[in-house]
Amino acid sequence: MAEINQLTEEIIAILAQKGVIALDNEYLPVGISNRHIHLSQADLETCFGKGYQLTVLKELSQPGQFAAKETVTIVGAKGAIEKVRVLGPVRSRSQVEVFASDNYKLGIKAPLKISGDLDGAAPITIVGTQGSVHLEEAAIVAKRHIHMLPSDAERFGVKHGDSVKIKVFGERGGIYNNVIIRVSDKSRLDLHIDMEEANAMGVDENSKIIIVKHDNEGGTNG
Amino acid sequence: MAEINQLTEEIIAILAQKGVIALDNEYLPVGISNRHIHLSQADLETCFGKGYQLTVLKELSQPGQFAAKETVTIVGAKGAIEKVRVLGPVRSRSQVEVFASDNYKLGIKAPLKISGDLDGAAPITIVGTQGSVHLEEAAIVAKRHIHMLPSDAERFGVKHGDSVKIKVFGERGGIYNNVIIRVSDKSRLDLHIDMEEANAMGVDENSKIIIVKHDNEGGTNG
Repeated sequence: MAEINQLTEEIIAILAQKGVIALDNEYLPVGISNRHIHLSQADLETCFGKGYQLTVLKELSQPGQFAAKETVTIVGAKGAIEKVRVLGPVRSRSQVEVFASDNYKLGIKAPLKISGDLDGAAPITIVGTQGSVHLEEAAIVAKRHIHMLPSDAERFGVKHGDSVKIKVFGERGGIYNNVIIRVSDKSRLDLHIDMEEANAMGVDENSKIIIVKHDNEGGTNG
Repeated sequence: MAEINQLTEEIIAILAQKGVIALDNEYLPVGISNRHIHLSQADLETCFGKGYQLTVLKELSQPGQFAAKETVTIVGAKGAIEKVRVLGPVRSRSQVEVFASDNYKLGIKAPLKISGDLDGAAPITIVGTQGSVHLEEAAIVAKRHIHMLPSDAERFGVKHGDSVKIKVFGERGGIYNNVIIRVSDKSRLDLHIDMEEANAMGVDENSKIIIVKHDNEGGTNG
């Protein structure tokens, strides 16, 4: 049965690619997030020195966003994780995005939150080359989300803040509930999940993933 | 919408627990696997010394299975992971079960396989206190699976080797496809997923998870 399901999925994908059949939805580009940190200019200067500016290592999929050369060590009550990548540009408030498993390593309780919503985020200490800063509300596990332009939102029939399901094809596939729609005219269509979410469903940059808006997803009661 | 869905799920769960309503399916007990290793007696002796016997640290959910006090270091082309727990009793053939993310750390390509099926498993080196052994086919990422008794299989309407979907309730929930049914009269009902799979859906030992046998799980085409 598993083999037949997989074969069916692959045939459908090929037929859709060749234009023989149309899909309700298009495949989503996917970005897989490692743990990372966004810093405020003030916290950046505390950690790296007065007047410090981030250095671009690599542009990211969202316009203007970049992975910086700088990394920090993040420290909780029970442990530390080194070489956590800083993403730029600086933000109004520092935010640390960790994996659910990092909560055990660090001894913190970072809650599942949408990026930017730091009410109730966990305390964490950030250490750079020149200093460190302890933040009372900064660490979260980021909710999976899809960045898109207003034109994408119109095409998909969704709006900013909506929660949708996504379906991942493939041998380790399945459905993730509660994927948050983020609409901005400064964005580019991209599904963001973290490495644990990617690994759990065998997702890589070539994975076939679609938005599943409707709610009849086969639970007997939910 | 996400909040309403979650509230609905919680209300259903409470009503089911109180016996007010009946569910199609019962909730599955869940065991969350860290990376681990099963050793043959020969490989155990190579790594720990002639005539060596494993020491029980903790009984596991499956009758007769235990976590041993012994740990090993596993080594691939690019890296090593220390303190990998040995599970007992010894088996006819050694098997290393890693996370998908460990493939990057170790520099190996452990394929997704059901436990015990080592055809095409990745080469890996295992290091104990007294020696080491290099195995050509030993490392896999274990397919998620459900252990059950024949009476459980009858109740759920499944048989050994079947592939089912499971539905995970909760804010980070969803559906995992291709969960393999393992029926044995020496087993106990238990869903086994690894830590990455657990984290990706926010699963802990209290999570509400059901088998979803039917196939209308909300993909537009699969």
